[in-house]
Amino acid sequence: MKLNIALLAGDGIGPEVIDQAVKVSDAVAQKFGHEITWKPALTGAAAIDAVGEPYPDSTHEVCKNADAVLFGAIGHPKYDNDPSAPVRPEQGLLKMRKKLGLFANVRPTFTFPSLLDKSPLKRERIEGTDLVFLRELTGGIYFGEKGRKDNGDTAYDNCVYTREEVQRLAKKGFELAMTRSKKLCCVDKANVLETSRLWRETVQAMEKDYPEVEVSYEFVDAVAMRLVQWPNSYDVLITENLFGDILTDEASVISGSMGLMPSASMGAEVSLFEPIHGSYPQATGLNIANPMATVLSAAMMFENFGLAEEGKAMRDAVNKALEAGVVTEDLANGGKAYGTKEVGDWLAANI
Amino acid sequence: MKLNIALLAGDGIGPEVIDQAVKVSDAVAQKFGHEITWKPALTGAAAIDAVGEPYPDSTHEVCKNADAVLFGAIGHPKYDNDPSAPVRPEQGLLKMRKKLGLFANVRPTFTFPSLLDKSPLKRERIEGTDLVFLRELTGGIYFGEKGRKDNGDTAYDNCVYTREEVQRLAKKGFELAMTRSKKLCCVDKANVLETSRLWRETVQAMEKDYPEVEVSYEFVDAVAMRLVQWPNSYDVLITENLFGDILTDEASVISGSMGLMPSASMGAEVSLFEPIHGSYPQATGLNIANPMATVLSAAMMFENFGLAEEGKAMRDAVNKALEAGVVTEDLANGGKAYGTKEVGDWLAANI
Ligand SMILES: CC(C)[C@H](C(=O)O)[C@@H](O)C(=O)O
Ligand SMILES: CC(C)[C@H](C(=O)O)[C@@H](O)C(=O)O
Repeated sequence: MKLNIALLAGDGIGPEVIDQAVKVSDAVAQKFGHEITWKPALTGAAAIDAVGEPYPDSTHEVCKNADAVLFGAIGHPKYDNDPSAPVRPEQGLLKMRKKLGLFANVRPTFTFPSLLDKSPLKRERIEGTDLVFLRELTGGIYFGEKGRKDNGDTAYDNCVYTREEVQRLAKKGFELAMTRSKKLCCVDKANVLETSRLWRETVQAMEKDYPEVEVSYEFVDAVAMRLVQWPNSYDVLITENLFGDILTDEASVISGSMGLMPSASMGAEVSLFEPIHGSYPQATGLNIANPMATVLSAAMMFENFGLAEEGKAMRDAVNKALEAGVVTEDLANGGKAYGTKEVGDWLAANI
Repeated sequence: MKLNIALLAGDGIGPEVIDQAVKVSDAVAQKFGHEITWKPALTGAAAIDAVGEPYPDSTHEVCKNADAVLFGAIGHPKYDNDPSAPVRPEQGLLKMRKKLGLFANVRPTFTFPSLLDKSPLKRERIEGTDLVFLRELTGGIYFGEKGRKDNGDTAYDNCVYTREEVQRLAKKGFELAMTRSKKLCCVDKANVLETSRLWRETVQAMEKDYPEVEVSYEFVDAVAMRLVQWPNSYDVLITENLFGDILTDEASVISGSMGLMPSASMGAEVSLFEPIHGSYPQATGLNIANPMATVLSAAMMFENFGLAEEGKAMRDAVNKALEAGVVTEDLANGGKAYGTKEVGDWLAANI
């Protein structure tokens, strides 16, 4: 297969972890006879510094014309103090999601047996946890009309959803559930919000098309509790943008393997793959960041092209590295810590 | 002191736990020379069954004219299947909050040394946890305009906040912080929402009036993570209605003492006190529900009247019962389980 991949390294540790994912992907491509052309493009604070824009049109062109986007991380402390400043790395992220139509954010949370003890939760609570959130990513209160009235003394944000937006996301949820344990949980606040009632009635109407899938409906506050109590009781969860923002972050810490969690944002035309961790500015350039989440994001990318074996080869390499203790300092547990680059080299050599 | 207390027992186990709180409060009143007149009134499913309304005007009259409201729990399974039905117990709750102007929901989360092992989190993560959420309760997306367009295919919920609403809640937060460790965390999503930017700028402008309070600003998704990672790093947190709904529920499970957590909802004129747990319909009438959260809510009520010693007497009785193992089955740990009523009797006798 010939693959054109847009490469958005971004800020902080982004470039370092992206380099390793490229290296491991190239090793996979070589082994399985694919050809990858990487198309680097600017984003985040790096893009603001260079051209005054966190998601420049030139970057959008590269992404739009690529078969997929591999993304590092964005965010820089110099933009942290004023969340209302008009030019911020996050604005670029939202613009990118909207312009590329990345409507479904896929966030798996799973455990690695060797890392169970890193979790803040007790082992018996998390053993076997393997869940996936599908978060709607281009609608809701993030993109509704917002502004001020009364000389700035009143602020508003409008949350809007259409039936189509819900169907599109829910369809992905049902399909994913069919490939897993056939359990789907729709997370909403239908006892208070009209948008949630639209979500619930839309998903209810789709149940008949997937008779094998067992669907449950839970309120977002209840899920925020049960995620901590019994994360392993969930499988596929679908939810709207803001609830997804909060719950996927909550879920990411319970597995104890946050530095290893990949994600995908699927669009109708192009999809994007990125680690869930941030740009970790303090670690920039120190060769200490864990590249595994980015490598596993690249594995999701291969799988999304239908290249299951290729994805599995990358996952297997990560598992082998974890077993062999070829890990960065966050996972070293007092043992030997390898550098970002050394872990990348080892993974590439073990494909 | 002469106290008029509206008594809203509600549904499920509500009446049983309320009975115990009344008993213990009466013991306190007798010991300290106060006189309490209890004014029972209907609410929740019980009120729907009786008069077709979850928060009837007659109940509102009782509450408005009382010095405080003691509340049990509402919710009944027969209303669970259709969250869009117009008459539901929750509708009564929202109406009550709005009509009584209960704008600040106070939700402490603290640990009992003897119950640390009940938490899903590891002991070292929660030891010393003692935080309080102040959740705004009468504004935001709960009460903004909501509805449908496009023949029902588009739904919307408007989130609105005024500077005054934020100030009123934040003032309570600063004042509470002054009586504790002088640390205040404002939880928002100011990188995305205009209402959150209003929250942040309003709180920032108030900092100068409380020079001793150290204020931090954190995004709601980050707090959802850190609450599980290091709950004991927080003290007072203030936030808007929906974020508060999600985060206070999340926080309630980490202490391991959920069945013991009280809450208060403060208004300009009258305030309401209730356990955070629900109506637990399966346990109705079985004399197994834990009454301690309701007793501790009554303790908050006394303290809110400035009767600190009275509140302390109730807390001390609960602590003594926990140490003596006079507990309901949820805390019995395989040991002897006492009935709801027996625990109430013991607490009253130990005032
Ligand atoms: C940076 C921010 C705008 C973003 C979001 O809220 O979507 C982030 O929290 C995420 O989840 O990717
Ligand atoms: C029942 C529901 C409307 C309510 C809320 O969302 O406020 C409940 O979850 C709560 O937190 O008291």
